[in-house]
Amino acid sequence: MRALDEHRAAALALAAPLPAVEVGLADALGMVLAEDVRADEPLPRWDNSAMDGYAVRRADVLTVPAVLRVVADLPAGSPDEPALEPGTAARIMTGAPVPPGADAVVPIEVTDAGTTTVEIRVAPEPAAHIRRAGEDAIPGDLVLAAGALLGPAHVAALASTCRSSALVHRRPRIAVVSTGDELVPPGTDLRRGQLPDSNSWLLAAAVTEAGAVAVRLGPVSDDPAALLELLHSLDADPSVDGVVTSGGVSMGAFDVVKAALADSPGVEFLPVAVQPGKPQGLGRLPGGTPIWTLPGNPVSSFASFEMFVRPALGRMRGLAAVERPTVTALADEGWRTPPGRAQLMPVRFVGDARVVPATGRGSGSHLVARLALAEGLAVVPAEVDEVVVGASVHVLKVT
Amino acid sequence: MRALDEHRAAALALAAPLPAVEVGLADALGMVLAEDVRADEPLPRWDNSAMDGYAVRRADVLTVPAVLRVVADLPAGSPDEPALEPGTAARIMTGAPVPPGADAVVPIEVTDAGTTTVEIRVAPEPAAHIRRAGEDAIPGDLVLAAGALLGPAHVAALASTCRSSALVHRRPRIAVVSTGDELVPPGTDLRRGQLPDSNSWLLAAAVTEAGAVAVRLGPVSDDPAALLELLHSLDADPSVDGVVTSGGVSMGAFDVVKAALADSPGVEFLPVAVQPGKPQGLGRLPGGTPIWTLPGNPVSSFASFEMFVRPALGRMRGLAAVERPTVTALADEGWRTPPGRAQLMPVRFVGDARVVPATGRGSGSHLVARLALAEGLAVVPAEVDEVVVGASVHVLKVT
Repeated sequence: MRALDEHRAAALALAAPLPAVEVGLADALGMVLAEDVRADEPLPRWDNSAMDGYAVRRADVLTVPAVLRVVADLPAGSPDEPALEPGTAARIMTGAPVPPGADAVVPIEVTDAGTTTVEIRVAPEPAAHIRRAGEDAIPGDLVLAAGALLGPAHVAALASTCRSSALVHRRPRIAVVSTGDELVPPGTDLRRGQLPDSNSWLLAAAVTEAGAVAVRLGPVSDDPAALLELLHSLDADPSVDGVVTSGGVSMGAFDVVKAALADSPGVEFLPVAVQPGKPQGLGRLPGGTPIWTLPGNPVSSFASFEMFVRPALGRMRGLAAVERPTVTALADEGWRTPPGRAQLMPVRFVGDARVVPATGRGSGSHLVARLALAEGLAVVPAEVDEVVVGASVHVLKVT
Repeated sequence: MRALDEHRAAALALAAPLPAVEVGLADALGMVLAEDVRADEPLPRWDNSAMDGYAVRRADVLTVPAVLRVVADLPAGSPDEPALEPGTAARIMTGAPVPPGADAVVPIEVTDAGTTTVEIRVAPEPAAHIRRAGEDAIPGDLVLAAGALLGPAHVAALASTCRSSALVHRRPRIAVVSTGDELVPPGTDLRRGQLPDSNSWLLAAAVTEAGAVAVRLGPVSDDPAALLELLHSLDADPSVDGVVTSGGVSMGAFDVVKAALADSPGVEFLPVAVQPGKPQGLGRLPGGTPIWTLPGNPVSSFASFEMFVRPALGRMRGLAAVERPTVTALADEGWRTPPGRAQLMPVRFVGDARVVPATGRGSGSHLVARLALAEGLAVVPAEVDEVVVGASVHVLKVT
């Protein structure tokens, strides 16, 4: 059996950052920057007022009260550039460029707020309430580095450098295929033996949450020839960056994914020393499209996606850090773990940094309803055979 | 001046959970459930096999090896219900219902994998490898509670209970208006005094990130009559659940938002004891639409959104917990705070739970490029006048 970390590395190695595309600011949120963004101009562009008040020559108002003639009115956005002569002031609003000759701003609150003349009541400090051009950035300064995940403040920083678009990595578009003759769309009346397909919904949502675009296909039947045809058509579609399947990779007589890809040298199937999720497959379809074939039990699919697919999607997006945050927590209940295999136990938090198995009555990989309670996956190393009450465990946060 | 917490409460009080709508599973991710979801049927529906192997009558195989006649082949999805007579077995795949009469499953690995007869080599424990109907949930069990934020596992749980849709709170649709004659769309060549509009981009992205739908309008000019007309048209639009503005709420001579809403008794403008973000307004437009009027400096807008708008949007979405996670961190550099006002200092993490001001060279509320470095907002209480090196601060995580 392959070790968990080794398979994680193999799964991640299938991914590379996708090509860069230019997107407008409206589409930039959540994308990953593919270029360094530097300031072309000083930010702010001009010395400007930090207050609503009066731009003055400080020498005129060292002794207060002092009365100055108001020679200009400078709302924000004013293009006016009136030179201040001695004895004069300009009414100025926050953000307006400071006029030539002025070397301080006096807030309106310490004046008589006059419009033809103004009485200045408090002498300003040198350069008071002036924001200097270039205080935020000077030309050439790195404002955003390639690899930045664009949040609201990053989008604002792009706008502030006067950019209306940015070069970002394309979002991966991932086909999700669940397999199994027993699967029917949710909402269908079940006859004996049937099961509502939940995996294609689970994995499509997980792909979306990972910042990729999910193309949900399936459930598809246990017909290897039909599945192979579908996989080949996805492989031939240049808009598809990867394929994730669930089910059909085990030891059974009807394991459709294994059967369909038996003659595909680029895809390997092998047991991984992990529970749940032992039967795994991955590789490349003949045209080069990465494929991750996950086992079909819902908890196995969920945990396998977290371990093997999510980091790869992060790398495709261009993220430098592709791992979920982890925390160390104490087991508030004990549980058994399989000998010789790592364990991925869905857990929920009870109080501060204490966890219990989320699936409660059982730890079975079929407990899809209870899986919704999971806030994390406790990753228990293969060497550990039992998690005792009070033991420290590493928990990957999944919500 | 109103205390920070008091204004937070007033801002949140404008919001109520939006009406529930039915959405298909494809649209459920990220929505908040507006109903309790209970199991109608047992999950799993039938006793079924946890392994690929043979369903047997355990009494037949207490002494091994034992050879049984294979009377049925039960792939997953098979509707067949062959009664097992003594001395017979059914080949069975994972997930297939266990046939009547069988009381254990023997994994294929401990058999000769025969198809007409099968040799059983290890005697099974009672009920071995059978998943019981109802193990995951029995009819009436609460699977998902109202108020749950639907992640991938929740969508899968809905599917597993055979639902193709769910009742969720409608996403709030929020109009974002930035104001100021100085603002031009990013990408426009600037003449003296002009500034690229970054606030409408900042706030629209923040609205989106908060799980709402942003309708970005603006920048609009400093014309109170035109702004009032725009606000009235938004108020009259039943698809608009709230309005966020930036700028025009200060002490200046051209404060357009204050001027436009001067005669609107439902909206109050007042100073809040916080830095940045002292000038604030909020209330309801005449038609009842909530409005939050934020100050225009970008860092003020950002911090005000976090404090006053984001929690309200969470409540509209139906979330029970509307606060960002907070952590306690140590100040790795000291900084000054304003006397008598709480402070919201953008910070970044340096090493483990240590923070420094993100804006580096200055703490000015105009440093929009540097704001992109912020990973949190340190919330320093009004009583504290200086954060010394090594002091413990509460940090709201914003990334």
